Amino acid sequence: MNAKATLLVCGQILTLDRNNTVIEDGAVAIAGDTILEVGERAALVAKYPGVAQLTQPHGLVMPGLVNTHTHAAMGCFLGLADDLPLMTWLTEYIFPVEANLNGEMVYQSSLLSMAEMIKSGTTSFCDMYLFAKEVARATADSGMRGWLGEVLYDFPSPNYGVPENGIAYLEELLAEYRTHPLISITVDPHAVYTCSPDLLKRLKGVAEKHGVAYVIHLSETRDEVKACLAKYGKTPVMHLDSLGLLDSQVVANHCVVLSEQEIDLLAERGVKVAHCPESNMKLASGVAPVVEMLAAGVIVGLGTDGAASNNDVDMFGEMDTAAKLHKVHRHDPTVMSAETTLRMATQGGAQLLGAETLIGSLEPGKKADLIVLDMNKPHLTPMYNIPSHLVYAAKGSDVVHSVINGLVVMRDKQLLTMDEDAVLDRLREIGAQISGMVGPGRR
Amino acid sequence: MNAKATLLVCGQILTLDRNNTVIEDGAVAIAGDTILEVGERAALVAKYPGVAQLTQPHGLVMPGLVNTHTHAAMGCFLGLADDLPLMTWLTEYIFPVEANLNGEMVYQSSLLSMAEMIKSGTTSFCDMYLFAKEVARATADSGMRGWLGEVLYDFPSPNYGVPENGIAYLEELLAEYRTHPLISITVDPHAVYTCSPDLLKRLKGVAEKHGVAYVIHLSETRDEVKACLAKYGKTPVMHLDSLGLLDSQVVANHCVVLSEQEIDLLAERGVKVAHCPESNMKLASGVAPVVEMLAAGVIVGLGTDGAASNNDVDMFGEMDTAAKLHKVHRHDPTVMSAETTLRMATQGGAQLLGAETLIGSLEPGKKADLIVLDMNKPHLTPMYNIPSHLVYAAKGSDVVHSVINGLVVMRDKQLLTMDEDAVLDRLREIGAQISGMVGPGRR
Ligand SMILES: [Zn+2]
Ligand SMILES: [Zn+2]
Repeated sequence: MNAKATLLVCGQILTLDRNNTVIEDGAVAIAGDTILEVGERAALVAKYPGVAQLTQPHGLVMPGLVNTHTHAAMGCFLGLADDLPLMTWLTEYIFPVEANLNGEMVYQSSLLSMAEMIKSGTTSFCDMYLFAKEVARATADSGMRGWLGEVLYDFPSPNYGVPENGIAYLEELLAEYRTHPLISITVDPHAVYTCSPDLLKRLKGVAEKHGVAYVIHLSETRDEVKACLAKYGKTPVMHLDSLGLLDSQVVANHCVVLSEQEIDLLAERGVKVAHCPESNMKLASGVAPVVEMLAAGVIVGLGTDGAASNNDVDMFGEMDTAAKLHKVHRHDPTVMSAETTLRMATQGGAQLLGAETLIGSLEPGKKADLIVLDMNKPHLTPMYNIPSHLVYAAKGSDVVHSVINGLVVMRDKQLLTMDEDAVLDRLREIGAQISGMVGPGRR
Repeated sequence: MNAKATLLVCGQILTLDRNNTVIEDGAVAIAGDTILEVGERAALVAKYPGVAQLTQPHGLVMPGLVNTHTHAAMGCFLGLADDLPLMTWLTEYIFPVEANLNGEMVYQSSLLSMAEMIKSGTTSFCDMYLFAKEVARATADSGMRGWLGEVLYDFPSPNYGVPENGIAYLEELLAEYRTHPLISITVDPHAVYTCSPDLLKRLKGVAEKHGVAYVIHLSETRDEVKACLAKYGKTPVMHLDSLGLLDSQVVANHCVVLSEQEIDLLAERGVKVAHCPESNMKLASGVAPVVEMLAAGVIVGLGTDGAASNNDVDMFGEMDTAAKLHKVHRHDPTVMSAETTLRMATQGGAQLLGAETLIGSLEPGKKADLIVLDMNKPHLTPMYNIPSHLVYAAKGSDVVHSVINGLVVMRDKQLLTMDEDAVLDRLREIGAQISGMVGPGRR
């Protein structure tokens, strides 16, 4: 029994369990990919002698963060173009490059974002992009836990070509990763403005057949709502509902523009929402009614969206911004407390992914996904309240170790699953290529 | 002539001069406290042989950031209480502690914030607090460039006692630091709701006599404006103007609640504004009309406010938030560009402090205040646009070296001017003391 432990992660333990248990000098005992026990350090060290230890002076051990909306491969577009109207950004920069994208660029750029995610404390993410097999390969190589899918729409794709091929590609992906310990495939219609009702329905069928999440950008901008009203006489949310597609399998990204009635409907249907405040701010989309959604009982996770519209995939920064944005937006300093925000970035994400029994807190039986922060820093001293520090003061760069599925993927800020310098070198080459593809008048 | 150089700082040089000069492989030659020359690395190394070099692979050299509004000593309140209504926060937490504050707590807490500031790329700041002599002592010890003053109001102070003593204390401070190379004293009436018209006018006289900045919290919240209207029949801005106090000597913190007419008046009078978006968000004060102020020609600098209402003094995070907040607030992704935001955090701050000939850009004759960032990071690769990366992607933790007034104050992330571990240890003790002073029902 005792022989089963394979790793002890020691420090101040923030379990984020139902009772908010904190163990001042504790340890998490891991057996393979699973948390065996959480308790006092001295007791666990005695109980599991000779087991490797991962520790940090003034270290805080907590569940890894869950990023519920990414386009990891857009890491290569980081800072390519900013401060532009959405259509200029898309037509002069993003579309020209995406038309020339290939699998290797996606693989390398995904690794880049995953390096950034691990280094800033994220252990799980939900990704939507082109060439998803390459994203999956990068995910497997990085050691991260990923929910990911191939983005599907009515137009030809630089990956699979004509739309008809998209579903075949998706089915291959589903088959290939059916039993992977870290990777879950999702069904990803891009949005209601890029997918016909027919495609939306066919994809729902695929999601139902496989019992996987149906991930879609929904009600992100006022223009999207306006166009949907003009085309279908319904808002995006009501449009999906009228097609019979709105249920607890749906993960809706953004949900910025919602009526009270739509919020209630999302709650009633069990739709999960990925909230991406920094992307919504940078693209000037608006402020999602997250306070209202939480009050209505909607499950909300936090996400960064792609690096091209943020411009980072750092969930510590995202928590800070989320907590502050809703306060100023609602003129109420008591909303989106540190505790609420931290839960959104951990269990909220786990629930959104249907993985609340697997991740999101440090409890026996859950997967061993956890991070260790070095709290011996001027910006984290003194310490009165852990959630406050994690949301308002801690930075991604305070994370020193990361364990995913029981494996140490980062130790002392060094990535153990990938050759970071090689990735950076390759990305500099890819960046130089991309620079040649874009700009005003290119298209 | 050549013998004058004392240090060469090498890397990619972002001068932020009028022409936005960037030198790909450059150097900044420093002589004593002053920038001697900025140019190609090879040429300067040849011209100044044997001079010590500070460099970094993939390093970016840029002007140090200017934090235009801090209460550095509030570092010890970091995370003490959050997510509370303003009056609860003040009466149950901040006031009880401030009543028991002493000089040593202020000195140590100021050092703590200065450690955080240096480590996150700030080289100059403008501070207002109690026990300003202790803040000044910490500033001198840290090697930072500081504008600072004793906060003055109508009530007794835990530092100088009855209000009458405040001006005497201020005069001592002014005399003591008249010729200090790094420290400038300011005159700091707290706000119009805590200072009588008489005190405001007397302090203006002191500021005029010494030719120093007159720093005041102004129009921070709607409640402040409402109370001022009720008491004086005028908004805070119009109240100051009617007293004849509104001129180019004034540094106004926050300015969240302003009419169009007031914006024009601030521009006309040459008032400078310290914009603190994260504090305004966290306290739910509102969004300052910065886009409008800049359009009207008001000089605006960026600031963090105290750590107790942010909760950090990290100007990289503040730039990111500022750029995004105004986009979403105005529903326009083109406002507050990376370039505009970066200028606000450098030259904007320098202009606000009347120090535009001294700091804010890397040019011969200016003071040698500069920082070096390590850009060899996943979140900063590839690099298409420097201001975009600095505002949207870079973190305070990317800063590796810092030079202030020609002196290396941080090398390889190690502070050279203070014993960081000793400060952290002392702050943990102070934090334990403070925990005993606060909470509901304490007062
Ligand atoms: Zn997206
Ligand atoms: Zn202030």
